[in-house]
Amino acid sequence: MDRKIVFYHAPNSRSGGTFALLEELGADYELHLLNLKAGELRRPDYRAINPMGKVPAIRHGDALITEQPAIFMYLADLYAEAGLAPAIDDPLRGPYLRWLVFYGSCFEPALVDRSLNRDPAPPSTSPYGTWDDVMQALQLQLTNGPYMLGERFSAADVLWGGALHWTTLFKLVPETPQIRAYIDRVITRPAMQRVAARDAEFVALQVA
Amino acid sequence: MDRKIVFYHAPNSRSGGTFALLEELGADYELHLLNLKAGELRRPDYRAINPMGKVPAIRHGDALITEQPAIFMYLADLYAEAGLAPAIDDPLRGPYLRWLVFYGSCFEPALVDRSLNRDPAPPSTSPYGTWDDVMQALQLQLTNGPYMLGERFSAADVLWGGALHWTTLFKLVPETPQIRAYIDRVITRPAMQRVAARDAEFVALQVA
Ligand SMILES: N[C@@H](CCC(=O)N[C@@H](CS)C(=O)NCC(=O)O)C(=O)O
Ligand SMILES: N[C@@H](CCC(=O)N[C@@H](CS)C(=O)NCC(=O)O)C(=O)O
Repeated sequence: MDRKIVFYHAPNSRSGGTFALLEELGADYELHLLNLKAGELRRPDYRAINPMGKVPAIRHGDALITEQPAIFMYLADLYAEAGLAPAIDDPLRGPYLRWLVFYGSCFEPALVDRSLNRDPAPPSTSPYGTWDDVMQALQLQLTNGPYMLGERFSAADVLWGGALHWTTLFKLVPETPQIRAYIDRVITRPAMQRVAARDAEFVALQVA
Repeated sequence: MDRKIVFYHAPNSRSGGTFALLEELGADYELHLLNLKAGELRRPDYRAINPMGKVPAIRHGDALITEQPAIFMYLADLYAEAGLAPAIDDPLRGPYLRWLVFYGSCFEPALVDRSLNRDPAPPSTSPYGTWDDVMQALQLQLTNGPYMLGERFSAADVLWGGALHWTTLFKLVPETPQIRAYIDRVITRPAMQRVAARDAEFVALQVA
């Protein structure tokens, strides 16, 4: 089957991680640019792709895929030759899925609570615990370093490296030496740099 | 490799979904029962398995896996012969990953906001949107019925059927005819019934 992907992207947003992954994978993709500030994500044509009105989204043939962890898993398996996903029978497969899901199920919602200065939900109500729980679990995992899965660089690092980059810039995540070193290890990669440069150009075009 | 799984379970909790999945898959597993009310999930020995202090968790060999969508993906691929996971080259693979991740990344955190009567976060801050967005996206997907992926029953239905069951009981999710019919289709399956009966016995033992 043709591996060409249509990628729905808004510059300077969460979809930058998927952009970086597509470059890391050497994937065949067509970029579909959207202007977030102009409200293009809330229009019916985009709602037909993602009813949540969020980027990233990808289309492969007739299949629409949204939600970063799902997109990352899908793409890294589709372009398996790039080696960014431990295979199904690899002992790292489970931890790989765990930390990709943890990003969307725990880190992101805890980050919302933190950025709005909300009190955490009572433990018995909360599937994602407190911000401190999330940061502790993450920092513990990073002690396996240099990467999320230890020696092995994976798609999980593309997601986490990029996310920790913007969340430390926004002062939501503390820039400990461990976290700083991890971010640098990821964002200095050629594919990440290339995407950052292209995204800056797109932002300039959309502002103009 | 040996496919035996150690399953960390607290009766009458979110880990019931994994229990049902293990039965649906005909998996080889060893049940490790924990008493949530007695605080066993917060003890250091369990924190070494999941630093978030939550169930479910599974261990396969040396690999620890937490977070329901990750556990579901992992187990359904490990016991692929049960046919509950579309294979990597199946056109339903992407939607399968999408709706498993959507459960943890969108439905669960929106449910927390709803059960605490919190105002939703501003759209630009929130990766999971509002409760209404989440319910609309879910209900739209269910129109593909009878199952999440249309004609094909999958591990995603074990997760969603069980979750919609308890969230309608708690009056958090509206019991529309569509949702009611979907829940019934899932929870009447023999494996689901078997697990519900065993869980009720475990609860009685822990209360005693
Ligand atoms: N749960 C989604 C969240 C994606 C998300 O929050 N995207 C933001 C961009 S940073 C968005 O599209 N916002 C649109 C809006 O706020 O109108 C995922 O992880 O893929
Ligand atoms: N994000 C986790 C959430 C699991 C979760 O919230 N589990 C509850 C059981 S219903 C728990 O272990 N609570 C322990 C506690 O509240 O102390 C997942 O989806 O696996």
